[in-house]
Amino acid sequence: MLSAFATLPTSVRVFEVGPRDGLQNEKVQIPTEQKIQFIQMLAEAGLPVVEASSFVSPRAIPQLSDAATVMTHLKRLTTVDYPVLVPNLKGMERALAAGVRSIAVFTAASESFTRHNINATIAESLANFRPVLELARQEDIPVRGYISTVFGCPYEGAVDPQRVLEVAQELLAAGVAELSLGDTIGVATPIQVVNVLELLLNAGLPVQQLGVHFHDTRGTALANVLAALQVGITTVDSSAGGLGGCPYAPGAAGNLATEDLLYMLHGMGIQTGVDLDKVVAATAYIAPFLGHAPASKYYQAAMAAAGNV
Amino acid sequence: MLSAFATLPTSVRVFEVGPRDGLQNEKVQIPTEQKIQFIQMLAEAGLPVVEASSFVSPRAIPQLSDAATVMTHLKRLTTVDYPVLVPNLKGMERALAAGVRSIAVFTAASESFTRHNINATIAESLANFRPVLELARQEDIPVRGYISTVFGCPYEGAVDPQRVLEVAQELLAAGVAELSLGDTIGVATPIQVVNVLELLLNAGLPVQQLGVHFHDTRGTALANVLAALQVGITTVDSSAGGLGGCPYAPGAAGNLATEDLLYMLHGMGIQTGVDLDKVVAATAYIAPFLGHAPASKYYQAAMAAAGNV
Repeated sequence: MLSAFATLPTSVRVFEVGPRDGLQNEKVQIPTEQKIQFIQMLAEAGLPVVEASSFVSPRAIPQLSDAATVMTHLKRLTTVDYPVLVPNLKGMERALAAGVRSIAVFTAASESFTRHNINATIAESLANFRPVLELARQEDIPVRGYISTVFGCPYEGAVDPQRVLEVAQELLAAGVAELSLGDTIGVATPIQVVNVLELLLNAGLPVQQLGVHFHDTRGTALANVLAALQVGITTVDSSAGGLGGCPYAPGAAGNLATEDLLYMLHGMGIQTGVDLDKVVAATAYIAPFLGHAPASKYYQAAMAAAGNV
Repeated sequence: MLSAFATLPTSVRVFEVGPRDGLQNEKVQIPTEQKIQFIQMLAEAGLPVVEASSFVSPRAIPQLSDAATVMTHLKRLTTVDYPVLVPNLKGMERALAAGVRSIAVFTAASESFTRHNINATIAESLANFRPVLELARQEDIPVRGYISTVFGCPYEGAVDPQRVLEVAQELLAAGVAELSLGDTIGVATPIQVVNVLELLLNAGLPVQQLGVHFHDTRGTALANVLAALQVGITTVDSSAGGLGGCPYAPGAAGNLATEDLLYMLHGMGIQTGVDLDKVVAATAYIAPFLGHAPASKYYQAAMAAAGNV
C-alpha cells in the first residue's frame, strides 16, 4: 500500500445524526412512532451512536417537539449510545427526566453564526451551557461539543482556524468529552481539512476527542473524510440517507450520507461494525415520510439496482 | 502541509466528456444546434479538452447520430482539443471527413463486459481498432484509449488488476497516446484506486499517459480523485452537470460532475485554467433539455443559492 495511506485507521466510529440533525432540517414532521422505529432500526444496524433527538424549544424546532416521548418509549440496546442535543439547563432537566444518559451542546467558530443562530456571542454560548456541563458532570453523563462553521460561515465567509482552536480548547477545558468539527455549509476541501486538523493536533488536542462532520453540499464530503482519516481521525458524523438538506441553500445537499460513508470505509477495509444493508433498510423505511428522495447516492444506486425507482 | 499531501500536482487537466459520454447516456436527444452551443460554452469556459461526439452507428447511439454535423459546424478554439469516439475504420473515415483531429477508442478489462457491450473479446476489440490506429498514425492524430470496468464489472464483479495492466500495455504498445481508466459502474474506493494505479506505475507506465474516469454512483468519485492525485495522476475525466447517469443502474448517478471536480481542485489550490462559473452556465443552458435536474451537487448548490430551485 502507498505510504500516503499507511496511517489510515483500521476502524472508524460512525456517529449517526440522522434522527436529530437530519430530521430537524427536514420540512416534514415524522410521526413519533415511526421516528422511534427509525432510531431502533439504525441501532440494530450496528451503529454505535444514534443521536436521537433535541431538547430545544418546540417552537424553535417543531420537528423534534416529541423528544421526551421518543426517549421514554425507545427500546434501547445496551451497546448503543443515544445522545440528545441540549441547549440550556431547562433542556438538560427535561432530558434527564426522559432518561437521557448522553448529551451534546453546540456553539460555533464564527461570531456572526452564533448571533444569527442562537442570538448570542460565542462566549455567551459557552457561558450558557456551563450549568449544563456541571449537571452532566454530577450525573456522570458524557458531553459532546458541536462546533459549527469550522470551515466557513454563511455570514462571514472564511473562518480563522486559530478561532476554531480557541473554541475547541475552551470546550475541552470546560469538560466536554469529545468535539464534532462541522462544515456547516459544505465548503471544505481536503487540504483545508488537513490544515485545520493539523493545527488542532499540533496544539496538543487528542485525536480521539476530535470528530468530523461534513456536508456534501458541493460533493466534497467523502474526499474530506479521506483527508481526515489520513491525519488519524476515527470519529465521523453522518446521516442515514443524507437526511437534512442544507438549511443555507434549500434544495442543495446537506449531511454526508451514512450509506455513502460506510460504502467507502468498508471498501477500504476499515471496520465500522455497521451493516450497510440494514442502514439502507432504515432509510427506505423513513423515505416515504420525507416528501423527497433521500440524497444518499449509495441508497439511490441500491434502490435502482432493486428496481425501486 | 501534511506529508500525505506533499506530492499533490500543482495543476490538473480536466478532460470534459459531457457532450459525448454524458449525452450518449441521457434518454433525450438534444437538438444539434443546442449541442454545438453547449460544446462551445464548455470550450469557452477554459476546458482544455471537450470530447464532442461519437462516430458510432446512429442505430446504436441515436443521441449522437449528428456527430458529423456537430463537428463540421462547431466553431473551434485553437487552444481546445475536441476528440470524438471512433469504434472502427468506417467511423474513423467519417470522423476524418468531418475534420476531426483527435480521437478515442475503447475496450475493457473484463471479457464479459466487451462481449455484452461490443460483442467481441478484448483481443478482438484491440484487433478491430488496429486499422484505426494505423490511419491515425498516418494522419498524425493522437488517440486516447478508454479502458472500461477497471475497478469492477457489472457482469463479472471483481476485475484482476493484472488484466488492467495487460490491456493498458497492449494499448500503449499499439500507439495509443494516453489511457483513461474507467470505473464504469462506480464501485471503486480510494485504496483500490491507489493499488491499481501503483501496479501500473510500478510496471513502468508513464503517469503522464494515465487518466482516471470515475463514476459517482456510490458517492466516492471525488475521494477517488483525491487518491489518484496522491499518486501523481494529472488527467481527470468529468462531465458537465454530471450528465450521463449510470446505464447499469437507471436512476443512479454516473459520471463525476465537472463542477464538483473543479470546486475541489480549486479549493486545494490546484490549477485547471477553467472558469467554474462558466461551466455552471453551460450546464444551466443544457439542463432544460434533459428532463431531469443535473446531478452535480455544486451545480445544485449554485442554483439554490441563486434561488433557482
